[in-house]
Amino acid sequence: MKKVNVIEANDFSETGMKKLLVHDSPYFKILNFNFKAGQELPVHAHDIEGQVSLVVLEGKGEFLGKDGAILPATQGDVLISEIAEPHGIRAGTDLRLLVTITPPI
Amino acid sequence: MKKVNVIEANDFSETGMKKLLVHDSPYFKILNFNFKAGQELPVHAHDIEGQVSLVVLEGKGEFLGKDGAILPATQGDVLISEIAEPHGIRAGTDLRLLVTITPPI
Repeated sequence: MKKVNVIEANDFSETGMKKLLVHDSPYFKILNFNFKAGQELPVHAHDIEGQVSLVVLEGKGEFLGKDGAILPATQGDVLISEIAEPHGIRAGTDLRLLVTITPPI
Repeated sequence: MKKVNVIEANDFSETGMKKLLVHDSPYFKILNFNFKAGQELPVHAHDIEGQVSLVVLEGKGEFLGKDGAILPATQGDVLISEIAEPHGIRAGTDLRLLVTITPPI
């Protein structure tokens, strides 16, 4: 067993989202992205098989999808997307996000 | 994209942990388990390949491991375990847990 507390292990940056690699294995990759209010992970996609989950640990914002689609994002939200489907997030308040990618890329 | 807010979609039960299936696909299975203070997911293991992550969304408690091992569990903790390795959790306060299993079982 391995434990990481992402609130203790990662902070925020004024210059852009702050990234922490939590875990990488043949099974999945887990990352924590912290955003100051107004920062974003722009809509992107990778042309590969697999799925990604985005979990809002703290804060509020908006999930971003293809063609300008927007979904509200708040604590407790779990968004699931194909890796190949456009996805992103914009922080309205300081926001902590946990990202799980499988298979890992 | 599919979104579930596990705080809205799942509640607590006086009679035992309250389970919500968030997502199931060939890539991963995502579940939300809510525990009232004192409730637990006893130590268990499955003799199969793969890994599981346990993410504490809210609350405090203890992660349980083999031979009585205990690790404190608190908001922001990400525990990663082999599916075949004994793991469990006990809630000290009301606790919301997100569980991701890959490959799904």
